[in-house]
Amino acid sequence: MEISKTKAALYATLSSKKMRNRHGMFIVEGEKCVLDTLGAFDIVNILATPEWFGRHENIVSRYSDILLDTQSAVLAKISALSSPPEVMAVFRIPKDTVVPDLSGRLVLVLDGIQDPGNLGTIIRTADWFGVDVILASTDTVDIYNPKTIQSTMGSLKRVKVYYTSLQDVLRQYPDMPVYGTLLNGENIFHAGLSDSGFIIMGNEGNGISEEIRKFVTHPLLIPPYRKDSHGESLNVAIATAITLSTFRNY
Amino acid sequence: MEISKTKAALYATLSSKKMRNRHGMFIVEGEKCVLDTLGAFDIVNILATPEWFGRHENIVSRYSDILLDTQSAVLAKISALSSPPEVMAVFRIPKDTVVPDLSGRLVLVLDGIQDPGNLGTIIRTADWFGVDVILASTDTVDIYNPKTIQSTMGSLKRVKVYYTSLQDVLRQYPDMPVYGTLLNGENIFHAGLSDSGFIIMGNEGNGISEEIRKFVTHPLLIPPYRKDSHGESLNVAIATAITLSTFRNY
Repeated sequence: MEISKTKAALYATLSSKKMRNRHGMFIVEGEKCVLDTLGAFDIVNILATPEWFGRHENIVSRYSDILLDTQSAVLAKISALSSPPEVMAVFRIPKDTVVPDLSGRLVLVLDGIQDPGNLGTIIRTADWFGVDVILASTDTVDIYNPKTIQSTMGSLKRVKVYYTSLQDVLRQYPDMPVYGTLLNGENIFHAGLSDSGFIIMGNEGNGISEEIRKFVTHPLLIPPYRKDSHGESLNVAIATAITLSTFRNY
Repeated sequence: MEISKTKAALYATLSSKKMRNRHGMFIVEGEKCVLDTLGAFDIVNILATPEWFGRHENIVSRYSDILLDTQSAVLAKISALSSPPEVMAVFRIPKDTVVPDLSGRLVLVLDGIQDPGNLGTIIRTADWFGVDVILASTDTVDIYNPKTIQSTMGSLKRVKVYYTSLQDVLRQYPDMPVYGTLLNGENIFHAGLSDSGFIIMGNEGNGISEEIRKFVTHPLLIPPYRKDSHGESLNVAIATAITLSTFRNY
């Protein structure tokens, strides 16, 4: 079935967070990301050029009732990417956001990450290191932002992100260690690290916020190799990766 | 002095690699990046709003002959950023690109990195881990790309990047170990790692090229934490960070 003008116009608005929340839907673009995300969320529609559908019979037979033939020019209007893909999919934003029991788990906690690409890369990295629950402060950038989705490379299928009051959750687990990278922290490469607990990563410019810093029981530091000559800081996705790989060190 | 229309038009072309190479100049945007980069390259002009100059007397007195008063609207035309800054600087691209003696050093080698943000983040990370020489294949994205410059956060001052034939350089050091992340590599967390040698990172989609793979004497692997459930790969800047931190493990 050909996509209607109304639907094309609706889907084009989903690059905005406000409209994603109003309609409860988000878009995943490009063959790899679409195929990786199928099964992770309820699907609404698959939009592709007739040529793309022609090359993907397994998708066509399985999802026949929700396919929308969409010309390249229309895909370009809906796309948030500079090079619009031949296929995209519209998914429903899940409504249940009840944080599961976190006892005994290694949990990544994001306190105000602002850059969508950083968030996506962090999710992809958490997936690699077997961390499948992420708590995000409510001022963290939206995971359904097109740039975030693109940088996760399909990892949202395995990694669940919960937007919540970090303080409320941290208060519920007074016995679990809370790690956070702080300027006065212990060299992470020499620190004793537990295989469960919370690992807090802060905002790109300001680090961990005042309110959340109070919860940190184990301050950590990724020290620069040379004390006298180095950059000012690490990118937050990079710092997350080094931290997770040091915790998992297997 | 007010910027001339001719200069504004010329500087606006420097977002293109072709024009950067033709004119031998590149632009650094934003207060932090400009201040960090001063002294690292020959400076041609500093462009800023009269208000910015008013707040930075030390810059004004030191660089009085090359300051150009530039209105916000003109800065916006020259800028490659979505939020144009109040200040930018034009530097000369250095001409000498003779690779220094690499014996006994830890050298990062980039084989066809395409994303400007990844390249900038890799340079920033290398700086943190005390790696100050990077070799880049000639098909690696340009370090003077505005997005790369922005993501380096001033690290180009300390880290030198040489575009060169990787094969030619690697052949000159037959006794130095050559590390590369490959699918059949040894778990990097258990491998014996030297404090000198070459660390090769490959292209985002295809990894290390056929020609360069032959030089790898020590294949390494950053294994996923769970064998049965994980993403397909790590972002190349993330993989570089984990590799460097594991080598430096101090």
